Amino acid sequence: MRRDVSDYSSKLDTSKLSGLLGIPVHRISGALKRKTLQYAFSKPELFRFDKPVSKIEGGTSVFTGTYDIVRGFPKISRAVMLDPALRQHFSSCKKVAVEEKMNGYNTRVALVGDKVFGLTRGGLVCPYTTEKARKLVPLDFFRDNPDLVLCGEMVGPDSPYVPKSLYGIESLEFFAFDVRKKMTGQPMPVIKRRELVEGYGIRSVRLFGEFYVNEAHAEISRIIRELGKTMHEGVVIKDPDMVVSPVKYTSSESNCSDLKYAFEFYNDYGRDFFFGRVCREAFQSVEWDEDGKCLEKRCLQLGESILLPMVKTIKKRKAGERIAEDVRIRVMRLETVAEFEEYLRILGVDAVFGEPEKVGDEYLVRIKKLYKSTTDKTGSILNGGMWS
Amino acid sequence: MRRDVSDYSSKLDTSKLSGLLGIPVHRISGALKRKTLQYAFSKPELFRFDKPVSKIEGGTSVFTGTYDIVRGFPKISRAVMLDPALRQHFSSCKKVAVEEKMNGYNTRVALVGDKVFGLTRGGLVCPYTTEKARKLVPLDFFRDNPDLVLCGEMVGPDSPYVPKSLYGIESLEFFAFDVRKKMTGQPMPVIKRRELVEGYGIRSVRLFGEFYVNEAHAEISRIIRELGKTMHEGVVIKDPDMVVSPVKYTSSESNCSDLKYAFEFYNDYGRDFFFGRVCREAFQSVEWDEDGKCLEKRCLQLGESILLPMVKTIKKRKAGERIAEDVRIRVMRLETVAEFEEYLRILGVDAVFGEPEKVGDEYLVRIKKLYKSTTDKTGSILNGGMWS
Repeated sequence: MRRDVSDYSSKLDTSKLSGLLGIPVHRISGALKRKTLQYAFSKPELFRFDKPVSKIEGGTSVFTGTYDIVRGFPKISRAVMLDPALRQHFSSCKKVAVEEKMNGYNTRVALVGDKVFGLTRGGLVCPYTTEKARKLVPLDFFRDNPDLVLCGEMVGPDSPYVPKSLYGIESLEFFAFDVRKKMTGQPMPVIKRRELVEGYGIRSVRLFGEFYVNEAHAEISRIIRELGKTMHEGVVIKDPDMVVSPVKYTSSESNCSDLKYAFEFYNDYGRDFFFGRVCREAFQSVEWDEDGKCLEKRCLQLGESILLPMVKTIKKRKAGERIAEDVRIRVMRLETVAEFEEYLRILGVDAVFGEPEKVGDEYLVRIKKLYKSTTDKTGSILNGGMWS
Repeated sequence: MRRDVSDYSSKLDTSKLSGLLGIPVHRISGALKRKTLQYAFSKPELFRFDKPVSKIEGGTSVFTGTYDIVRGFPKISRAVMLDPALRQHFSSCKKVAVEEKMNGYNTRVALVGDKVFGLTRGGLVCPYTTEKARKLVPLDFFRDNPDLVLCGEMVGPDSPYVPKSLYGIESLEFFAFDVRKKMTGQPMPVIKRRELVEGYGIRSVRLFGEFYVNEAHAEISRIIRELGKTMHEGVVIKDPDMVVSPVKYTSSESNCSDLKYAFEFYNDYGRDFFFGRVCREAFQSVEWDEDGKCLEKRCLQLGESILLPMVKTIKKRKAGERIAEDVRIRVMRLETVAEFEEYLRILGVDAVFGEPEKVGDEYLVRIKKLYKSTTDKTGSILNGGMWS
C-alpha cells in the first residue's frame, strides 16, 4: 500500500521551521512538494533536505519532536591542479592549515533532545553510527556544548559503508575534523576546534601543519606523495579561521583504489564517479610534469584499477556467484543489529545479515551487501545479451 | 528572434504522413509537439524523427516537397560476449554472413524527387555527403531502383566526421553494406544485395564469408584479431536473409582508438561513451581467457588510451591553444563548401574553414573543429578552478 505523502507533510510545522531557518514558508512547502525536503522513517522522526534549498545545505535534518535542527555538512570543493587552485581559492588568506582526509564515512554527532545521535552525510540517523557515537564521544562534550555538532570520520574495518584496515584500527574509531553550530552550520577556527575536542579526549584527524599559501603547494605535494605510499586518501586544506571554505586534494593511489572498488560493482556506480577520477589522474600527471616512465606507470595503474576488478566480477558471476561486498559491524547491543537491518531495508540496500558472533563483550555481525544491477547485467551478457 | 515552432509544423501534412507511414495522426502531432519530429533547415526541406516513434526509426526523413520518405538506419545491437551472443541471437539461423564494419560515417543515399541526396545517420541532408554520393554512386542505380535506399560507410581521410587513413583511401570512398526499401526500411538478403550493387560498379564492404552459427565464434574471433592488428574496426554479423537483425562486434584496438579520440575532447563527449568501451574490454578479456601478461598489456593499453590524449590536451591548453580537431573536405564545387559551412553552423558545430586549396580539379578545404567545452573546462582548472 502506497501511503499518501501528505500524511507526512502534516507532521511538519512549516511556519515554525520557516522561522527557525530564516527562509520563507513557500520555499519550505515547495521543497516538501518536490520531496527535496522529505520525511524519513527514522527514530527519532525527522525531515531531511535531500538537496540544497536556499542557503540550507543538503543533508540538513529537522527533528519533528524537538525541532532540533542539524545543518548538513557542506560539500567540499576538490582541487585538481593544486598550485593554481591554492593561489586562487585562498588568495585572501596568509596561511592554510592542512589536515588529513581519512577514508571512512562522514558522520555528524549531535544532541537531539537530551540524547546523542549519529547522522550520516545524507542527514539520516544511522542506528549503528549512533551506538558507536555514544560509545566514542563523551557525553560531557554535549552537556557543555549542546548547541554544537561534532563532525568527523568514522574509520576502520567494522564499517558497513567504507571498511578500511589501513589505519591500524581494530574496530571503528571517530576522528573529529569540524565543530559547527548545530543550527547555523557556522564552523570553529581550526586550532580552537582541535583544542576543544582534545579537552574531552576526542581524537582529531592528523594536522600536518600550517603553511604560507605561497609555500603550501610544495608542502602538500610532498605530503600527498607520502600519504599515497601507504594508500592514505589525502588532505583537506583549510583557512585556519574557517572563513574561506576548505578544499580537498587526494592521492592517485586512493583515487585508483576508489576506481578498483567501483569497477567491481560497475553497474551500480554512477558514470560520473569513474569520469571524475580518471580526469584527476591526467591533471595530476601534468602538474607533476611526469616523464615517459612515470606516466607509463600511471597508465598501467589506471588500466589495472579499471579492468582487474571488472574481470574478477565477470569471472565470479560466470562461476554462478552473486556480486556482493562483505562488510561487518560490531555492536554492544543486539537491538542495534535489528535496527540497522531495518535501516538498510528502508534505504533500499539489499543486505544479508549473518548470525551475531560473540567477540569479547561485543557482537560481530557479517553482512553481505548485494549488488543487484551488476549481478544482473553481468549475468545477462554472459548469457548472450547485448550491451544495448 | 525566436520563430514560432508552428511556422514549421504547418509545412507538414500530418494526415498525409499518417497514411504514408501507417501510424495514427495523433502520434505524429504528438511527436511534432515534443519535437521528436522536427523541422530541419535543410535543402531540400525536411522533417526528421529525432527518436523512434511507434515503429518509425530515429533518423527517418520526410521531405515536405515531394513526400519522399527515407527510413532511418536501424540501431545495430552490440555483442559483448561473442559466443553466447551468437548462439542466442541467431538461434533461428543456420548460417551467418560476416561483413567488415568500416570506420567512417553511416550514409544513406536516396532519390528525393529526381535528384540523389546523401543523408547522415540523424536524417539530415549533408551537402558534402551529397556531392560525394553523386560522384561515387552511378545515377543508373536509382533510375532502375527509385524505391531503394543505398546504405553504406563514407570512409577516408577527407571525412569531416570520421577522418581515417588506415584503409589506403586517397580521399573519400563509399562502401555499401545495406540496400533497403526507402519507404519501409525492408532490407535485402546479403548476397542479392552485394550482387545488385556490384552490377552498378558500387563497392561493398568486405565479406569474410558465411559460417555455420555454431562455428562462427571461432571464425569471428580469428577475424577480429586480424582486423585489430591493422586497427580495423570490426565486423557486422548478419542473417544472410536479413530476417534476424544484425549484430556488431569490434576489436579492442578500435575500441581503444575511440577512447583515445574521445579523451582528447574529454568534456565534449558523453560519459556513456567511455563507460561502454571500458566495459567491453573487460568482457573480451574474460571471453579470451587472458592470462597475466596479456591482461597486463590490455590494462596498459586501456590506461594509455585514456590518459595520454588527455595529458596532451591539458598541455596544449597550458600552452594557450584552443582544443580543436583538424579535418578536411575535398570538393568539386566551391558552392558545396559554403553549403557545408552553413550546415555545420545550423548543427551548432563551431568550425573554422581554411581557404580552399586547388588540388587537381578539386578543392581541398582544411577545417578546424573547435571543442569549446573541453577548452573551457581545461582552462578553468589550469587557472585554479575546482572540479566541482
